[in-house]
Amino acid sequence: MARVHNFNPGPAALPLPVLERAQRELLDFEGSGMSIMEHSHRGKVYEKVHDEALERMRRLMAVPDTHEILFLTGGATQQFAQVPMNLRADGQSADYVIGGVWGKKAFKEASHLGKARIAATTELPDGRFLRVHKPSELSVDPKAAYLHITSNNTVMGTQLHDWPEDPGIPIVCDMSSDILSRPMDVSRFGVIYAGAQKNLGPSGVTVVIVRKDLIENGRKDIPFSLQYRTQAADKSLANTAPTFAIYMLRNVLAWVEEAGGLAWAIDQTEKKSSALYKVLTERSDIFRLSVEPESRSKMNVVWNMAAPELEAELVQRATAAGFVGLKGHRIVGGLRASIYNAVPLASVLALCDFLRGYEPGRPGV
Amino acid sequence: MARVHNFNPGPAALPLPVLERAQRELLDFEGSGMSIMEHSHRGKVYEKVHDEALERMRRLMAVPDTHEILFLTGGATQQFAQVPMNLRADGQSADYVIGGVWGKKAFKEASHLGKARIAATTELPDGRFLRVHKPSELSVDPKAAYLHITSNNTVMGTQLHDWPEDPGIPIVCDMSSDILSRPMDVSRFGVIYAGAQKNLGPSGVTVVIVRKDLIENGRKDIPFSLQYRTQAADKSLANTAPTFAIYMLRNVLAWVEEAGGLAWAIDQTEKKSSALYKVLTERSDIFRLSVEPESRSKMNVVWNMAAPELEAELVQRATAAGFVGLKGHRIVGGLRASIYNAVPLASVLALCDFLRGYEPGRPGV
Repeated sequence: MARVHNFNPGPAALPLPVLERAQRELLDFEGSGMSIMEHSHRGKVYEKVHDEALERMRRLMAVPDTHEILFLTGGATQQFAQVPMNLRADGQSADYVIGGVWGKKAFKEASHLGKARIAATTELPDGRFLRVHKPSELSVDPKAAYLHITSNNTVMGTQLHDWPEDPGIPIVCDMSSDILSRPMDVSRFGVIYAGAQKNLGPSGVTVVIVRKDLIENGRKDIPFSLQYRTQAADKSLANTAPTFAIYMLRNVLAWVEEAGGLAWAIDQTEKKSSALYKVLTERSDIFRLSVEPESRSKMNVVWNMAAPELEAELVQRATAAGFVGLKGHRIVGGLRASIYNAVPLASVLALCDFLRGYEPGRPGV
Repeated sequence: MARVHNFNPGPAALPLPVLERAQRELLDFEGSGMSIMEHSHRGKVYEKVHDEALERMRRLMAVPDTHEILFLTGGATQQFAQVPMNLRADGQSADYVIGGVWGKKAFKEASHLGKARIAATTELPDGRFLRVHKPSELSVDPKAAYLHITSNNTVMGTQLHDWPEDPGIPIVCDMSSDILSRPMDVSRFGVIYAGAQKNLGPSGVTVVIVRKDLIENGRKDIPFSLQYRTQAADKSLANTAPTFAIYMLRNVLAWVEEAGGLAWAIDQTEKKSSALYKVLTERSDIFRLSVEPESRSKMNVVWNMAAPELEAELVQRATAAGFVGLKGHRIVGGLRASIYNAVPLASVLALCDFLRGYEPGRPGV
């Protein structure tokens, strides 16, 4: 069948040219007589791909020399543990901003392993989060090891549009769902981490950007394999890297650079999100935006139907029309369009047309 | 160019039909209009693949109901930490058999995190290992949490052909390089783990088979994300799984089953390894087998040249003739042919012909 309009929340759409390249090269990578998957992670052929992925990541995010880029595994979920294990001294606390279910999960892991404190939360009594915190709501413990934030909340569709002022302690940011889609100053962060499967590539690799002094001063009484320094010392090849996932990451980064880099991604994100919010706002007779306007995510557009019983119907009709992945997260229900970099503007505009013309009970639409 | 004969130690050769299938399905998986990489790990389409991988693994290895199969990440290297973290009680020791560099690394991680003891070692003063331990050389601490062994030593080319008698404590086995190539009784083991990139698929997923009571009684004061119970409770989907690696694993397992299952793999392994050792033994004027005969690996055939200065020349001439990946591990030098399940018997027989006809200084060969 033809390729669908893919609004999956992650794993998510990949750029068609990137998939076509992978398909073309799958049996014989660059005339080597084997697939990239069959190359040794220590061999020259793969190493070139690996190095290029690191270089492109550094260039696209303008990562300064003060920071190391690591390719790890286990997703953001494993970073929920690796961050406190590496950065928090014995008996020391860490500060967490709770802006959604993932930040809550990060806090839960940190509390399980040691001392952690909530620096701000916007959780409602019913468990929803309809906005991000305001700067005035943030109280930072100056002795904490770090301040942990989540830049974008995939489930609720909220996004932190302003980074915190320098809190005097390192900022650790889970940027899984909006990395490479927004203006960036890496020097403001102690750690940035992101599972690749939303904006960077397929699942199976986690990009972790860490300030070098935090690596050097990191704890040594934790497993060797989970110390950032182990991977930093070996270019993320301390164990057999997930080579195909990194190859795909390299290809996605190359595609973004060819399209115009971060500036292009930011521009596309603005166009896509504003088009979608426009139609959802215009048709407020049918659609309900629960998230407060200044907290709305430009990556995950979440809405409900004024008549909740129509939500399943809309998802069904959208799917039939070639728009897939629109069902909201099981925690909050409703609908969600995840519009990562690989989702073409044309797909979003087609969805806008579909939503603009939507009439409940008229299955022909 | 044509596909080469791939003797890489891991990541390693993949079956051509498996790669062709992946290539065919890459843009549109089973008519879904998207790549398997673009499907949600929580969606029906991917879940079917995931479940099939679990089922095929269970069938091929005849994994009893007493054991859980997990798909994790971080390779065997991360298991070096996860095993003692999950299985060893506070203050308790664990026993390690050191038969090669990987067992040594596992012991190093376990010692770093707590108490560990060497139950047997065959390391020579110069750091080499030319044989595996004899049953009489094993001393087991009955109070240890487990006995850790490595079934096959990829670097030195040795293999434990007989499993230890029941030591009265759980046996934990790193089976990364010979899983699914030898007779198997999973019920003898507390834990079996294997990075996929040798006998099972591409890198990026680690198969871990754990006895259910060890999961249930495992420690709870370690990170949630590293507890076996977390993944066991969620069918290894507690975090976003490395979906493409598991899809490839599924395809490799399907290919093995269609070829005749474990019995077929064992038979092929016998044929390939005996053909290769035969020519190396016959041409003892040129080749030297250092590993003691009863310890020789059927997966990684390691040898030297009688004239060490010819090793680089042989690797070069073999590469020119289409046999790649034969350079020995940087730690021991020499040559090594890794003949995992995906390396066709025909490739091994072609290599045998090449070696049989090899004359030093006759580059025309």
